[in-house]
Amino acid sequence: MSQSLQASPRVSADLYVEVMTFYARQMRLLDELDIDRFVQTFTEDGSVAHPHRAEEVRGRADMRVKMGRALPEYVDVVTRHWFDHFLLDHDGDELQVTYYSLVTEADMDGAVRLKTSSAVEDVLVREDDGQLRIRARVIRRDTPEAVRPRG
Amino acid sequence: MSQSLQASPRVSADLYVEVMTFYARQMRLLDELDIDRFVQTFTEDGSVAHPHRAEEVRGRADMRVKMGRALPEYVDVVTRHWFDHFLLDHDGDELQVTYYSLVTEADMDGAVRLKTSSAVEDVLVREDDGQLRIRARVIRRDTPEAVRPRG
Amino acid sequence: MSQSLQASPRVSADLYVEVMTFYARQMRLLDELDIDRFVQTFTEDGSVAHPHRAEEVRGRADMRVKMGRALPEYVDVVTRHWFDHFLLDHDGDELQVTYYSLVTEADMDGAVRLKTSSAVEDVLVREDDGQLRIRARVIRRDTPEAVRPRG
Repeated sequence: MSQSLQASPRVSADLYVEVMTFYARQMRLLDELDIDRFVQTFTEDGSVAHPHRAEEVRGRADMRVKMGRALPEYVDVVTRHWFDHFLLDHDGDELQVTYYSLVTEADMDGAVRLKTSSAVEDVLVREDDGQLRIRARVIRRDTPEAVRPRG
Repeated sequence: MSQSLQASPRVSADLYVEVMTFYARQMRLLDELDIDRFVQTFTEDGSVAHPHRAEEVRGRADMRVKMGRALPEYVDVVTRHWFDHFLLDHDGDELQVTYYSLVTEADMDGAVRLKTSSAVEDVLVREDDGQLRIRARVIRRDTPEAVRPRG
Repeated sequence: MSQSLQASPRVSADLYVEVMTFYARQMRLLDELDIDRFVQTFTEDGSVAHPHRAEEVRGRADMRVKMGRALPEYVDVVTRHWFDHFLLDHDGDELQVTYYSLVTEADMDGAVRLKTSSAVEDVLVREDDGQLRIRARVIRRDTPEAVRPRG
């Protein structure tokens, strides 16, 4: 390969692949409705915010309660999250990861429909056990108003 | 980058990228209806199972026959397979790869619709010519019953 | 890992990740309707062709004009481009990248629908400032006729 095509990465390819793998695992847990193991992918005080609903949940305990309440909506469908266009950056011990998220839902007969598209911003940290976990997640559901606020 | 963000990979980034490239090629062959070259991406005795239809095809020859019969359903549309959330693991000479798969279909006018979402489990091996090939594929179409079987 | 699973890459994992990151940035600019910064991701004489419309735009200036005219169609929706199945190859100083592209559109209420699926071929070069930019893009919208032209 010519010298001019050499890569100039901001994060190593190994870290990139580890982050892809982190999300692959986390989304299986979410889409399989394994709430207990899903909340373990956040730090103990981790948060999930949905600014368009002016809503934020903080801490695994509250996350578990909130998700448990919403569970009945999800038992008769298979929800799948599809991610794309990851950008990774780091600042000290924090890893900032942003990406697109598309949600589909399959019904009892396997018919699939689109539910939402969103832009997500995560802050990940590596904890003492060597695992990456999410300290803060912000999910912005796509609407023209959310993406391009007017004045 | 701080020490604590160093990656701890299970497979090398190079192998991960090679596997992504394998699927990129294999899906072009499938979506372009190039059955002969598609079946070459499986080992000679490779298998494809659809447990929800209690169906399994084994060997390139049978795969070719079965796909040839189904071909008329696909000539007036463009099918595209979209993959996500890859997990790679290895056990001796086998590479286990699992991922999400979303299928879309474009019609004569280019209008696109969702067909199915599935979870796929592949076993890959590297053959003597240096190429990765699939020894066994299991495709589980998403339905609540398939993902979360009840007692 | 057994010797037989070692990767045999055509491009380094670092370059692969850099290319993924390039598209992640470029698509944010496009989907946020930031035309000025989007055209900067092409070389000064970069081109975008849509063969199915017998259309080609060449050069950042013309690209800006054309996109500016189309802008009113996009202000009341959120368009998202989803890419998959990247194949990278290089020839001297050029990097050839092909991939699938699926376009979704979210309306004022956040309802999402599929718009198009396409196959894209890009030629990238690294310019003197160290940045990858696109010299030529060809977008082939999926229709049976486009994918499998008949005699």
